[in-house]
Formats: sequence, C-alpha cells, structure tokens
Amino acid sequence: MRKLQIAVIGYNKDRCTDAASKTAYEVGKEVALAGAVLVCGGLGGVMESACRGAKESGGTTIGIIPQEEFSYANQHCDVVICTGIGYARDFIIASSADGIIAVGGGVGTLIEMGVAYMTKKTIVAMAGSGGVADMYGGKFLDERNRVPVTVAKDAKAAVKVILASNNK
Amino acid sequence: MRKLQIAVIGYNKDRCTDAASKTAYEVGKEVALAGAVLVCGGLGGVMESACRGAKESGGTTIGIIPQEEFSYANQHCDVVICTGIGYARDFIIASSADGIIAVGGGVGTLIEMGVAYMTKKTIVAMAGSGGVADMYGGKFLDERNRVPVTVAKDAKAAVKVILASNNK
Amino acid sequence: MRKLQIAVIGYNKDRCTDAASKTAYEVGKEVALAGAVLVCGGLGGVMESACRGAKESGGTTIGIIPQEEFSYANQHCDVVICTGIGYARDFIIASSADGIIAVGGGVGTLIEMGVAYMTKKTIVAMAGSGGVADMYGGKFLDERNRVPVTVAKDAKAAVKVILASNNK
Amino acid sequence: MRKLQIAVIGYNKDRCTDAASKTAYEVGKEVALAGAVLVCGGLGGVMESACRGAKESGGTTIGIIPQEEFSYANQHCDVVICTGIGYARDFIIASSADGIIAVGGGVGTLIEMGVAYMTKKTIVAMAGSGGVADMYGGKFLDERNRVPVTVAKDAKAAVKVILASNNK
Repeated sequence: MRKLQIAVIGYNKDRCTDAASKTAYEVGKEVALAGAVLVCGGLGGVMESACRGAKESGGTTIGIIPQEEFSYANQHCDVVICTGIGYARDFIIASSADGIIAVGGGVGTLIEMGVAYMTKKTIVAMAGSGGVADMYGGKFLDERNRVPVTVAKDAKAAVKVILASNNK
Repeated sequence: MRKLQIAVIGYNKDRCTDAASKTAYEVGKEVALAGAVLVCGGLGGVMESACRGAKESGGTTIGIIPQEEFSYANQHCDVVICTGIGYARDFIIASSADGIIAVGGGVGTLIEMGVAYMTKKTIVAMAGSGGVADMYGGKFLDERNRVPVTVAKDAKAAVKVILASNNK
Repeated sequence: MRKLQIAVIGYNKDRCTDAASKTAYEVGKEVALAGAVLVCGGLGGVMESACRGAKESGGTTIGIIPQEEFSYANQHCDVVICTGIGYARDFIIASSADGIIAVGGGVGTLIEMGVAYMTKKTIVAMAGSGGVADMYGGKFLDERNRVPVTVAKDAKAAVKVILASNNK
Repeated sequence: MRKLQIAVIGYNKDRCTDAASKTAYEVGKEVALAGAVLVCGGLGGVMESACRGAKESGGTTIGIIPQEEFSYANQHCDVVICTGIGYARDFIIASSADGIIAVGGGVGTLIEMGVAYMTKKTIVAMAGSGGVADMYGGKFLDERNRVPVTVAKDAKAAVKVILASNNK
C-alpha cells in the first residue's frame, strides 16, 4: 500500500532565509511523523532543510532533480529521481504529490503550485514564510476558483490540512 | 537568419470567450505582419484563433502540442511539434519564444507566464481579455521583480512591446 | 546516505511471458536482498513482477509512470513518480539508475538500454528472457563500444554485476 | 494544410564524417525539393548539414534542441524549439515526424529510431553512412517486427520511401 506523498516546495539555496529554512525543517519533520513520504526538488534551500527534518524524524525522502546525474541532489535524499528534463521537472513534483506545502519561494514555486492547482491537489502556503507562499496564500490562482491556496500557521497545521483532504 | 518567435497563449477551447477569440485573431495577425513566427500550444481557443489570424495575414504558425499525434493540432498550424509530454509542454512554448502575449487564460497560461518570467522573457497581457491576463497584468510574478507583465491595449501595441525588447 | 538504485525493465503486461514474469520476480527479490532500491516503470508485466519480488523480500520499490495520476501504478510500488510526460519517462528511469537489468522487452526497453548506454551505466540482460534482452545481450549498441550489454544467467548474477560495477 | 514533416537524424558534430555530412546535405536538399519541412535536433554534424542542404534548396528547417536557449541551435534553422528537457527531446523529434532518415549516428540516433518504431513511423537508413544507420539498416528493432529500418542507397530514394508511405 502506497503511503501518502507530500511535496515540500519553496526557496532554493540562493534565496532561502534562515526563517524559511527552519520552517521547511519543521514541515519535513511533520511529514515524517505523519507517516507520509516527503517529495521535493532534491536540491538546496527549502528542499534540503525539509529533507533533513524528515530524515531526523525517521521519514523517507525523495528528491526529483532537474539534472541527469545523482551528484546534484542534497545528502538527505533517500531516493533520487534524475529527470534530466530541467525545470520541466516542476510538473513531476506536483503530479507526484497528494498535496503540496510551499515555504517562501519564487516563480518556480508558483509554477509548481499552478500544476497542483490544475490537477486540484491540496495546496498549502506557510504563513509568513515570504515569497510566493505569502503573495498567493489565501487566493485562487485563476478565475475558476478550483482549489484555494490554504494558509497554515505552522508545520503541524499544514500537514493536517493535507491529511484531512486525503481522508487519511 | 532565424525570425523572431512570438508565443500567443491563453484560454483553451472550453473557456474561450468570443472577445478573447477576436483579440487572439488580431494578435496573430499583428505577429504575422511584423514578420515574426507565431508559436503556440497548437490546440483550440486562443491558440486556434491566433493561428488563423496569422495565416490570413501570410504568417508562419507553429503548434507545440501535448500529445504525440499530429491529429490533435488545429488546422491552422504550418508545423506541428508533437511533444508527447503532456502539459509539461508549457515549458517548451515559453522557452521557444522571444516574447509572449497572453489573451485571457487559466492556470496553464499562468504557468507559461511563469516560465517566461523565470527566463526573463518579455511578457505582455492583453487588457480586458479576462482570465490570468487581467489578474496578473501590470504585476511581477514573484518578489524578485525580474520582468513585469506589461499590459497592452491592443494587438499592435502588444507586438510592438516585444519587438522593442528584442531590438528588431 | 543514498542506497544503490537498480532499474528493472522489460516486457509490459501485454507481452510478458510467464517465464519473464518469474525471472523479473527473482530479479526484484535479489535487488531487495542486496539492499538496493528497485526503480521501474511502475506498470504491469516485468515491472509489476519485479516490484512484487522486491516487496516480498522487504525491499523498497519506486514506480516512474508515464501518466500523471497515481492510479495507473501497480500495487507493489512504495513510491509512485507520476511524470505525466508519456514514454519520454523512459529517459528518467535509466537516468535514475546506477545500473539496469532487462528481462525480455520490446523497443521501449531498448530505448531505456540506449539511455543507459549513452550515460555509461551498467546494463545487464537476463539470458533466455526473450525480446530485446536476448537480441542485444552480449553486444554494444553503437560503434563506440561504450558499455557492453552484459548477459547474466540468473538474477543473483545480474545484481552482482551491478554491485561490482558500483564498488558496493 | 500542414506539409509533410521529415526528420533527419544522425551523427552529432563530434563524430560526423565528411561523407556523412555530404549525405546529410543531400538528404536535406531532397526533403526541401519534395516540399516537406525538415525537422531535426538543431545542433551540429548531420543536423547542421541537413539544414544547410534544405535551406540552399529553399526549404523550411525546424531545430528541436535539448537546451532552453536559442543560441545553441545551428545557423540554418528557420525555427528553433528550445525544449530545455535535455536528450529526452529525442522523443519529440521522432514524434514530430511523418518519417525519419538516419545518416550514421550513435545511440541517440538509435533511440530516435526506437521512438519512431514504437509509433510505426517510416524509418530509413542511408546505406554506407556508418554508425547505427548501417548497424540496424534492414532490420527490425524488436521481435514484434512492427516496421523495418529500410535501407536507401541515396537521398532521393530515402525521401521517396517516406513520401510513398504517407501517400503524398
């Protein structure tokens, strides 16, 4: 039986703040404690902090990277998916999630939220984490109002929203 | 010498309004008259109207479709690129453009705008065309303020913005 | 620390023989017993039998599927990567492996072997399993003679070849 | 009305022989003279020679490149599709062709032939051009015998095979 897969997305290494890194760590930890698998982009910043949080709580981490060589992944990925398709891998991260949690982030994170929105996945934005999480939190990404970007005040609440929407 | 490639993106067949269709036709026409190649997603709605506009003004049209069979493309595409990679083809449309023009559109159009933003392409939104063109027109898609979504009042102005930004 | 990732590729459900299914099961089992992660295309036939073999020996299984919905994956995948990019996902399977093992298979399997060959991954073909495993076993796929398609007489030998080439 | 799209594939710049380059030029020329659009990988070697041949005979050339920036394409591409998906773009080249012609080539060319085989496109290999064109010419790529790799003695004959199979 497949476990729930939760994607954590957000700032890459270049723009990740200490606060966002800490939040990502907490989200990773809560994903692990909920018994879900952590899916992410496998690189630095939010991705790395979330992986570290999940690993330190006994979770499983999957890094879906743009490159075709394993060496680009952060050291806290249990499994690395080397897509080799560049940033189009953002689609795969969102498609491979039962729900996604955004911690800060730039336009790449917005694109991942967009893919999740398109396929009606649950989307959660961490309150106060900056970037697109705060810009788009509480809104619908287009006029169809398919799924809202739900704002969560902390990591535990964020994971809870996704668990609830997946009835598990 | 490669000609300028301008992508026209926006509402698909299901949601395209008559007004958006008319605007897309005008944009396609202006792209052709400017001597540029029209790039689009190759399907219905805005894509089809833009292709028709370009063809009726002697232009060249390229449809980059999600499917792997030619038959899904609209009848006004001179060349069809059958990607077979589903909606990840949105990345290719934006990457294959020197600038993009949005006419209405849902989250798929937002994703294409996002890819263009990531790579600092010129992005133009048609004023009053609805959808994400109006929702995001005049804004920056993330906090880095890389490139604005420029609002254009008509098709001629939209193409002019892209020509100007490419120095041609 | 990432574990070794071994891809098992071959006949899909339509063409899988009982013998190939049995061989795939054994290969999956040996991958698990070696402490490696099983990577595969996540669908039926060889993919499903290999996953079942790995799971029944306590292994971890990753299914990288062409579709964008989880439901297409076989029931023995611990983690499902929904690529949504169709058969271009064959590239990702090969890129995401430290070595690959072919059990029978048609041209899709040949393509995966080709990608592995391009990036100099260890390629093993199961002797007598039919399909492209037997057609190309013992050969080089192009004139550059980069890496041979090594023939293995049984599952244990196949996994051993990959372990040896990865020094683990 | 869409014109026929013929893909020319084969040696990249690193391995292209003078003979293969000359053959590719002739194939490009014949594709143009037949009124078909030339589709290729857009880089050097066979791709560049074929594009040059087509352009010097008044044809239209489309380069589908692995990178996401236009600058990687050869100077004889009328239109450049910047896929940004790396070598997975090989799938798109084959899917976007009504038939393909191989001039020499390594495993990347074999992969493109494999994709064409999977979708039952007409595949032609230039006799004596070396590489996989000669290794696999006259054969079926798997045991299903879907479509043969037809051997053509010269460029005119190669294009004729594709025209005939498309009833045009």
